[in-house]
Amino acid sequence: MSQHIVLLAGDGIGPEIIAEAEKVLAQVNTQFALNLSWHHELLGGAAIDAHGVPLPDVTLDAARQADAILLGAVGGPKWDAIERSIRPERGLLRIRAELNLFANLRPALLYPQLAAASSLKPEIVSGLDLLIVRELTGGIYFGQPRGIRTLENGERQGFNTDIYSESEIRRIAHVAFQLAQKRNKRLLSVDKANVLEVTELWKQVVTEVAAEYPDVSLSHMYVDNAAMQLVRAPKQFDVIVTGNLFGDILSDQAAMLTGSIGMLPSASLDQQQKGMYEPCHGSAPDIAGQGIANPLATILSVAMMLRYSLQAPQAAEAIEAAVGRVLDQGLRTADIFSEGTTRVGTQAMGDAVVASL
Amino acid sequence: MSQHIVLLAGDGIGPEIIAEAEKVLAQVNTQFALNLSWHHELLGGAAIDAHGVPLPDVTLDAARQADAILLGAVGGPKWDAIERSIRPERGLLRIRAELNLFANLRPALLYPQLAAASSLKPEIVSGLDLLIVRELTGGIYFGQPRGIRTLENGERQGFNTDIYSESEIRRIAHVAFQLAQKRNKRLLSVDKANVLEVTELWKQVVTEVAAEYPDVSLSHMYVDNAAMQLVRAPKQFDVIVTGNLFGDILSDQAAMLTGSIGMLPSASLDQQQKGMYEPCHGSAPDIAGQGIANPLATILSVAMMLRYSLQAPQAAEAIEAAVGRVLDQGLRTADIFSEGTTRVGTQAMGDAVVASL
Ligand SMILES: CC(C)[C@H](C(=O)O)[C@@H](O)C(=O)O
Ligand SMILES: CC(C)[C@H](C(=O)O)[C@@H](O)C(=O)O
Repeated sequence: MSQHIVLLAGDGIGPEIIAEAEKVLAQVNTQFALNLSWHHELLGGAAIDAHGVPLPDVTLDAARQADAILLGAVGGPKWDAIERSIRPERGLLRIRAELNLFANLRPALLYPQLAAASSLKPEIVSGLDLLIVRELTGGIYFGQPRGIRTLENGERQGFNTDIYSESEIRRIAHVAFQLAQKRNKRLLSVDKANVLEVTELWKQVVTEVAAEYPDVSLSHMYVDNAAMQLVRAPKQFDVIVTGNLFGDILSDQAAMLTGSIGMLPSASLDQQQKGMYEPCHGSAPDIAGQGIANPLATILSVAMMLRYSLQAPQAAEAIEAAVGRVLDQGLRTADIFSEGTTRVGTQAMGDAVVASL
Repeated sequence: MSQHIVLLAGDGIGPEIIAEAEKVLAQVNTQFALNLSWHHELLGGAAIDAHGVPLPDVTLDAARQADAILLGAVGGPKWDAIERSIRPERGLLRIRAELNLFANLRPALLYPQLAAASSLKPEIVSGLDLLIVRELTGGIYFGQPRGIRTLENGERQGFNTDIYSESEIRRIAHVAFQLAQKRNKRLLSVDKANVLEVTELWKQVVTEVAAEYPDVSLSHMYVDNAAMQLVRAPKQFDVIVTGNLFGDILSDQAAMLTGSIGMLPSASLDQQQKGMYEPCHGSAPDIAGQGIANPLATILSVAMMLRYSLQAPQAAEAIEAAVGRVLDQGLRTADIFSEGTTRVGTQAMGDAVVASL
């Protein structure tokens, strides 16, 4: 059975890192006889330049029909002055919503070879392996009403609505509990239930769902405390589930604990495990075109894609093992370079992973 | 001219730490002939137990008439099951709103004597001295409409409104710029303007206000990136200004970077510099009544109160210097204890500060 992938290189370093991921994809496709095919479409600033909108219909249609999507990154200063409704980020938010990619999985994993890159003390982060499950198609990101209005006294006023229904909370809770079952069976739900009603409902519904997963131990924490505990003792966590906005903040904070955000993949899944895969880092316009970006997060996103959406766990493991060997060989892009290792560029890193496969 | 202070011990460790702060207050009052008087009122769980509400009228009236307020901490599991509208936190939120304490100043300062307590590497945090200015009476904490409703299909739905008007943003921006002028003249405004209109207005208005402070350099950062940068390189920051919810999260994260949240005071000020002062940490019900809580954050809150609201900068400096000397002597409560220092309890720590004065 043949499966099809859409590649969305996006902006900034996107095309460079996607090119390396594509090499790795081609290699495992042959090596494991996966019968995968793929083609490129435009998203974000690249799509604005070509078609005037960040998510052209042809991209959305292709994404709908694909079995999985691999994304580089979108956005950059070039499109900052553009009218809000057609900015690059809008394309990203819309594709998440249109494809119903409500479950965003963001692992924060410390590679032992890169332990020194963390700004935290080694004993605090060594062995760190936590997974943030962020709700991705609801909450304040999509809530209505929203906007900027002018009041009668002439003052402007900005407003957004944070909103979750029971069913939205329930489905992300199930995803999180099931992931916790496959890991260390501990789930933390993060809220601000002492202040915000929307997260009070969140906490209630997650607690209700817990009854179906007696093997998972559920706890709750306020978001301000979670931000503290991630700094103080991040290894206390296994799986963390939270809403769209808190998930945005905490997953980036957690990623940075590893010191090597250039290494972290992510998955955004729908109810049928169809998904969009992308590195946790952004489009890094400041280093775009220099051939120095780290392609490993994107290459590891290919591995996640093979595991979660394309039923090819062996190919996924092979890629992850190859990345481990390349790190063991001492190869490092600039972002993870340290004394005594070998600095390589984007292409050399991609080639090394292919060679190691 | 005589000035009056209201002490709100609150819950958990609140009474223990306020008792030590009161000793220090008595000492400086005599030593510097400050002509201060004070009395106690109830807030939070303590007020619920006595009067059935977290902010009794007598407390609110006393707070209104006082020149400054010193708060311990509120809340605890004992009151968790109480109906939302009269929970301890509600008393805190309401006193902030009623007294118009819109400017929350939360310094994150690393004491050189306690550098080892941080979970971050010494070179990342040594000399850390940043100030978070959090808007405290607006945004999603107070926005209407809010609540939990049942939809026609029987599903529950939770919702809150994040809302800021131009004038609310403008007044907190002025506070932040003026504080930056007295420090290193760098102000960072944190938003999520790529997604939320309310913070797009925030960014615009802060940028407008910047024209009045040409000596301060203003920059902007998305909240997810700010959470990352606080982990990666917190010393890049001087003053950070942001809304109520982002300020809650980032200030706790920043406080934890120092590793000694038991050391950090905070101030919540109105337009006339009248203020409520409290430690950054919470009521710590798990250690309440054991005499082991760290009173220094509350004692340093007294110093902030003397400086910002009571025009007694010399007494403020004397307290801060005394705290420094006590640390130099090696005295440590349990939360900041390390090998080779002397562990003391709450009272002994308070007594040592008084003795050092
Ligand atoms: C680019 C932006 C809209 C996006 C988000 O906030 O979701 C990004 O920060 C992310 O986390 O994927
Ligand atoms: C107790 C709670 C309502 C409060 C807040 O969220 O403002 C606390 O976390 C704080 O930061 O002072």
